[in-house]
Amino acid sequence: MEQMSPRRGTARLAGPADQHSVRNHNLALVLQHVAATTESSRARLAADTGLNKTTVSSLVTELLERRLLTEGGVRRSGEVGRPAVTVQLDGDVYVAIGMEINVDSMAFSVVDLRSRVRDEGWVVFDNRTRSAEEALEALAELVSTAVRRVAVEGLVPVGASIGLPGLVDAKRRSMLIAPNLGWHDVPVSDILRELLPDGLDVTVDNEANLAALAERWHGAGRELTDFIHISGEVGVGAGVIINGTLHRGAVGFGGELGHMTLEPDGPACACGGRGCVETYIGLEPTLRLAGFDVTEAMGADDDAPAAADRLAEAARAGDEQVLTALTSVGAMLGTAMSSAVNLLSPQGIVLGGYFTALHEWLEPAIAEQLHARVLAERQQPTQILPSRLQREATARGAAEQVLREVLANPTRVPPTG
Amino acid sequence: MEQMSPRRGTARLAGPADQHSVRNHNLALVLQHVAATTESSRARLAADTGLNKTTVSSLVTELLERRLLTEGGVRRSGEVGRPAVTVQLDGDVYVAIGMEINVDSMAFSVVDLRSRVRDEGWVVFDNRTRSAEEALEALAELVSTAVRRVAVEGLVPVGASIGLPGLVDAKRRSMLIAPNLGWHDVPVSDILRELLPDGLDVTVDNEANLAALAERWHGAGRELTDFIHISGEVGVGAGVIINGTLHRGAVGFGGELGHMTLEPDGPACACGGRGCVETYIGLEPTLRLAGFDVTEAMGADDDAPAAADRLAEAARAGDEQVLTALTSVGAMLGTAMSSAVNLLSPQGIVLGGYFTALHEWLEPAIAEQLHARVLAERQQPTQILPSRLQREATARGAAEQVLREVLANPTRVPPTG
Repeated sequence: MEQMSPRRGTARLAGPADQHSVRNHNLALVLQHVAATTESSRARLAADTGLNKTTVSSLVTELLERRLLTEGGVRRSGEVGRPAVTVQLDGDVYVAIGMEINVDSMAFSVVDLRSRVRDEGWVVFDNRTRSAEEALEALAELVSTAVRRVAVEGLVPVGASIGLPGLVDAKRRSMLIAPNLGWHDVPVSDILRELLPDGLDVTVDNEANLAALAERWHGAGRELTDFIHISGEVGVGAGVIINGTLHRGAVGFGGELGHMTLEPDGPACACGGRGCVETYIGLEPTLRLAGFDVTEAMGADDDAPAAADRLAEAARAGDEQVLTALTSVGAMLGTAMSSAVNLLSPQGIVLGGYFTALHEWLEPAIAEQLHARVLAERQQPTQILPSRLQREATARGAAEQVLREVLANPTRVPPTG
Repeated sequence: MEQMSPRRGTARLAGPADQHSVRNHNLALVLQHVAATTESSRARLAADTGLNKTTVSSLVTELLERRLLTEGGVRRSGEVGRPAVTVQLDGDVYVAIGMEINVDSMAFSVVDLRSRVRDEGWVVFDNRTRSAEEALEALAELVSTAVRRVAVEGLVPVGASIGLPGLVDAKRRSMLIAPNLGWHDVPVSDILRELLPDGLDVTVDNEANLAALAERWHGAGRELTDFIHISGEVGVGAGVIINGTLHRGAVGFGGELGHMTLEPDGPACACGGRGCVETYIGLEPTLRLAGFDVTEAMGADDDAPAAADRLAEAARAGDEQVLTALTSVGAMLGTAMSSAVNLLSPQGIVLGGYFTALHEWLEPAIAEQLHARVLAERQQPTQILPSRLQREATARGAAEQVLREVLANPTRVPPTG
């Protein structure tokens, strides 16, 4: 029989440094297999990974010592032989902290290795009237309290991540520009590390990207491989999922659907452009169009989802101006969406932020625009789905991102937990 | 030393059917290695692929018999041992036929395994006043003549592909909708197979997709992994390259930048929509804006590149109306481009079709819009490059697509060539 060409990487197994990296690779392989199947056994893992049983046993032992895995019950497979002891991810040791700062709110989520939310919070916080430092201090205080709370249950944070509304420099871990916050070049990660307990490592990302990933992993996008998550806040953000993964683009700043041009000579946008999508369908212009007093509806005690709930209430009660406004917003959203769908041909769109609560009134106008403007809409209609995670999406996505990083690099946690 | 987890596929080597597929896999591996390095030797191939020398020798023998490879000169490597006989792709046996039907023209390209164009042609042909059958008959006649011509040199076609201006069903190999041609549900592949010599197999694709791939492989996009190729014809088409490969989208109809909305209430488009990009910057509105008589400039004896050359000539001569028109077209193109760049964050844009000849007058207005409208433009400016392949792009891309298919499936050609 002819040999299959081996993977190029296997040729690098010789030296001691490489043995180390092979071990790490295999630890991750086993851990990710357990994560994917919820529960497994050493025999099952050997069969699934192609590693021999001795190796698998040694890897499982190390992952138990690192407290990433835990042994479960005994499972009889119905086959001959010894019943197998099952292993699962250990959900009661390590947690990741996900955070979000948005224009009028901040949020956090503490998620364990089994993707269970162990603590979370969401507060109204008008970041436009406060400095970046004030916002980060307030957030760090919320998170520190949560960390103390979950410590009582024996939970240990392994890392943190934060979603921000604008362009971030993921490498330098700082915020570059957040037009709606007025932030420029804020070293978010460095500031938070100083403020959080035990110098927790903090990665930064765009909030819409993290929300899109969260919907892909645990929300409305679970059944889709290709979709765009569009989130209505004060700004309008988006995350583009292609082949199941986030598309950041080669330059790294993809998903800025809120700054696609809806009308070339439209109103000035906070970004410096004109007629950007968010100048028409950000929360504030929508409230104005619906006849709401924006200062009141977006006051210090209120937030985007609450304003959206009030719009939904008025729509349900048959308020004509609100219904007309939502039809108009749906048409504009549908127009922007049509451009994105013509370009990318995804399976669907997930509507997050304030759009979620208004989905039933926006949807007919969106569908009408897609039908009129998307060249291939008659071949296959674009699915329009409301977000499932809603205001939790970004912080959940941030925490899950950290956890996936741990599953891919199990040696990030200490050898004996 | 710990074993590396093998690729799952290697476990499937047992049965005879699998031996067959492993052999095919390895034939392709060797052939693609030779293609990537231009010239190689059996020893070099064994080292590069990880296959043993006996296997490589047997594979090379088969590829020589199939006339996909040819032996070249003897290369002294400077090392001890026998000098190695080199092998190269055999460029003198198999060719692929690439074809294009566009609104006012048709083209073909005959390309050999070494990517050399052995024959090509481009003719003005107004497809809007003719039926699909007439167009396909005329194209088949051109191609049949070319096939007879290259047969004199001993060249044998292995397959064909055609680029069409609209939505194609790649599986059913038919044209679904071509708004600017007025074609609906035309079984292009079946019709061409009847008309072409020896029942040549014909795949179909969108013309802009093939042009983008050609620019990626042999044109302006060779140094880029992520770009959008935007081509100005009667319509405006685009192909999106992400991570070096064409992004068709999950539904398969991506790249319809010409039908992104530039003005929601703009002029009616042939697609049924309103204010589509191509209603503003397709060749005809541009000619009108520049003060040209469209019927004359786009007459039966003329074509898009000729009209573009005439515009360029007038611009070079300082014609005010033409210069103003090009600034305006550049601004509109730049606005559409900005939306695409905000969404996808590519490294650059390649301008094809009639835009190529007008690049120097369009570029300043494009750059101005990108600067004003792309949120991350200050972080990294988007590169704007003129197409290198121009009117050859689509037919070249079509032929190369077939050749790459052969490199990936060497058993498509007979065992003894």
